[in-house]
Amino acid sequence: MERYDIAIVGTGPAGLEAAITAKIRNKKIILFGSAALSEKVQKAHLIKNYLGLPEAGGADLQKAFLDHLSQMEIAITDEKVTLIYPMGDYFSIQSSGDMYEASTVILGAGMVPGKTYPGEETYLGRGVSYCATCDAPLYREKTVAIVGFTPKEEAEADFMAEYAGKVYYFPMYKDEVHVREGIEVIREKPVSVEGGMKVEKLITTGSAYDLDGVFFLRESVSPGQLVPGLEMDEGHVKVDRSMKTNIPGCFACGDITGQPYQYIKAAGEGNVAALSAVSYLDALRRAKA
Amino acid sequence: MERYDIAIVGTGPAGLEAAITAKIRNKKIILFGSAALSEKVQKAHLIKNYLGLPEAGGADLQKAFLDHLSQMEIAITDEKVTLIYPMGDYFSIQSSGDMYEASTVILGAGMVPGKTYPGEETYLGRGVSYCATCDAPLYREKTVAIVGFTPKEEAEADFMAEYAGKVYYFPMYKDEVHVREGIEVIREKPVSVEGGMKVEKLITTGSAYDLDGVFFLRESVSPGQLVPGLEMDEGHVKVDRSMKTNIPGCFACGDITGQPYQYIKAAGEGNVAALSAVSYLDALRRAKA
Repeated sequence: MERYDIAIVGTGPAGLEAAITAKIRNKKIILFGSAALSEKVQKAHLIKNYLGLPEAGGADLQKAFLDHLSQMEIAITDEKVTLIYPMGDYFSIQSSGDMYEASTVILGAGMVPGKTYPGEETYLGRGVSYCATCDAPLYREKTVAIVGFTPKEEAEADFMAEYAGKVYYFPMYKDEVHVREGIEVIREKPVSVEGGMKVEKLITTGSAYDLDGVFFLRESVSPGQLVPGLEMDEGHVKVDRSMKTNIPGCFACGDITGQPYQYIKAAGEGNVAALSAVSYLDALRRAKA
Repeated sequence: MERYDIAIVGTGPAGLEAAITAKIRNKKIILFGSAALSEKVQKAHLIKNYLGLPEAGGADLQKAFLDHLSQMEIAITDEKVTLIYPMGDYFSIQSSGDMYEASTVILGAGMVPGKTYPGEETYLGRGVSYCATCDAPLYREKTVAIVGFTPKEEAEADFMAEYAGKVYYFPMYKDEVHVREGIEVIREKPVSVEGGMKVEKLITTGSAYDLDGVFFLRESVSPGQLVPGLEMDEGHVKVDRSMKTNIPGCFACGDITGQPYQYIKAAGEGNVAALSAVSYLDALRRAKA
């Protein structure tokens, strides 16, 4: 498999600046995120303190950032990253579209609102998953629950139904649900995940469901779930001044590392994260030589 | 004396961003530095990784930054800050032009190349000084040396000669020297400063001079000399992720805090430093209430 030098997750100011700096340093990069940039950039109200771009609205920033990317010939891989697994001297990256490998990873995916359910993290990889497309084949003839936080996850439930024997769909939104026949739609809220060595039950506000797998399909995956073993600090990725996390080769930048949630702070950290990744790659190359 | 909320030292990207963010938070600020911005901004070659301003040269950045300042109605106080003294709940600030007071200080004056002479820091305030204009009256009829790193310090030597009984001038540059009659120009390099409780001698490459005071007039003052008691780490100001230094109310940002020396990193840190100063001011106000 082709191995990238640096995989960057997130197309907010942190991820974009990291990509630009890494590209200037001639690294082979892959940048994951929304091709229209992060929603936060698009929806930004007037930003007055991004030095050099006074009185910039979301659309202005989106344009300035996209122009910068295109001038540097940086493409965005518009896929949702669902799992990043440290393999020693590289990372295995699972996205909604494919599998990738990279020597280093920069997490710049912003802050994820909300929290996990009791048992969710415990059973991650043992019946709990964040990517139906990736794991559906493992649940042939089995019973699974899909907890969908937006209507677009209904397609995931449909896909799952092609494999699983039984699919429960828990919509976490009020809209009418359109899923294929045979999928049981249940308007109850999850409470916790229970089991032994593997997942056995999803407990809800109304009942308990015996099953083999539970898929929590949120807008974004929280960093601790994205990278197993990543050290967190009060809901943020713990980093030092060089943007290193506790996992060698894994760096983080922007809102994901904590307050203040500001564009220019995020961009500055993206720059530092990229240069730290470059130093790490140099050290890796020397160690192998 | 009028007391500012935040005094910001330096007009590179760090200081400018700090000023803009502090102004948005309605703080009463004073921004010290070159009105034409830092030399590093002006002289910058093409900067390709300042997100949102692709392919920007020094002149472009200078214009973008100055436009942003003028839009925010932020003025630059074009004076060299020579000493910042922590007074407990505020700072006393000595500049080439005046004395000021501020509740907090943000150091964003960039990296100072070069090192100090042995004995220089030991005798700071006890015969060693960085501001002839400020301290000349203390040396009436005494013997002093002025070590001038640029020709513009010749004016300081002339001013000193109005007070001191004897002035030695050590030019640290090759240009012809034009100082008033009576000032002894000596083409030797300083080696060290010696004395007992106070300065007694300047040792040079060629000789030793008995004197009462030595003025080292460099382009910039190193941060440890600027703020007595400031904790340094290998030549940089030691800060945590919130840009706090070891002195309560004193923050630092940009190149002064260490590598990488990059515009966007400096601007990002300026933002964080300003918001940390705002939090500190809030806490100070609550403590007094």
